[in-house]
Amino acid sequence: MQETIRIIGIDPGLRRTGWGVIETLGNSLRFVASGTVTSDGDMDLASRLCQLHDGLADIIHSHQPHEAAVEQTFVNKDAVATLKLGQARGIAMLVPARAGLRVAEYAPNAVKKAVIGVGHGEKQQIHMMLKVLMPKATFVGNDAADALAIAICHAHNRQGLSGRLAKLVG
Amino acid sequence: MQETIRIIGIDPGLRRTGWGVIETLGNSLRFVASGTVTSDGDMDLASRLCQLHDGLADIIHSHQPHEAAVEQTFVNKDAVATLKLGQARGIAMLVPARAGLRVAEYAPNAVKKAVIGVGHGEKQQIHMMLKVLMPKATFVGNDAADALAIAICHAHNRQGLSGRLAKLVG
Repeated sequence: MQETIRIIGIDPGLRRTGWGVIETLGNSLRFVASGTVTSDGDMDLASRLCQLHDGLADIIHSHQPHEAAVEQTFVNKDAVATLKLGQARGIAMLVPARAGLRVAEYAPNAVKKAVIGVGHGEKQQIHMMLKVLMPKATFVGNDAADALAIAICHAHNRQGLSGRLAKLVG
Repeated sequence: MQETIRIIGIDPGLRRTGWGVIETLGNSLRFVASGTVTSDGDMDLASRLCQLHDGLADIIHSHQPHEAAVEQTFVNKDAVATLKLGQARGIAMLVPARAGLRVAEYAPNAVKKAVIGVGHGEKQQIHMMLKVLMPKATFVGNDAADALAIAICHAHNRQGLSGRLAKLVG
């Protein structure tokens, strides 16, 4: 028997952390909600991390997802930016885990492949495919769109996994 | 009137996060406790961040510090290591901030300068000076020692700050 699974995708960033909640039942996807949690660049780092924490905790409380997926952030050559991203990503992993959710991680090219069929592509292609996959999806900005793409990536991969498990069990 | 301020210093790391609690009254320093919170390398990242979170939250609950100080982690050229450190550091900043503590950040050379008088030096020099500054201090390993050094750095700097403020006010 199939059951509806509600997934939150999170695209972490210190200034803006995108989030998107979807539901998956078998092969179907349903858009639930999306948005962005922001932190105030004028505040100190610890306070900004609290803002991200509280924002994500509120969203998980409101939407009650069963599973979470976070982008395995691209590690670039700017160490200061990587450290900042790491700090935000720590919060993005912690909040769903403390709420009892399993947290999956996906590389950016896995996310793109799940949504547009190949491991590379423009932001606009992702936006367009989100509308094809979930016509009712609404999102403002790249962060919320990326978060929805991460949630879809998890829906595809967890389903593949359950399919394989079912075969093994059957 | 001077008051006793209790400070927690934190040296963040994904595998081992050192912590040290001291008290400062005027120019005097008193050792309270120190230790290391560890995460299990066999577990997934989200669970490890939860372990660091819960460990630090317990210590802050037990020792009730008034202020916190975290090392401004050295950003090296290994981006994967920097990202890991960033994630642990995010938790190390978040936990005291959520407990209502102000969280100060100090660069590694500021920490060394506060403890051994110069901005560079060996781990052994730090261990030795900790024993000179706080004869009753006990610590196991570099992480707890570094965390105590960070706490001492904050004791010196916050005191300098109050001193300067007192002069301005007086």
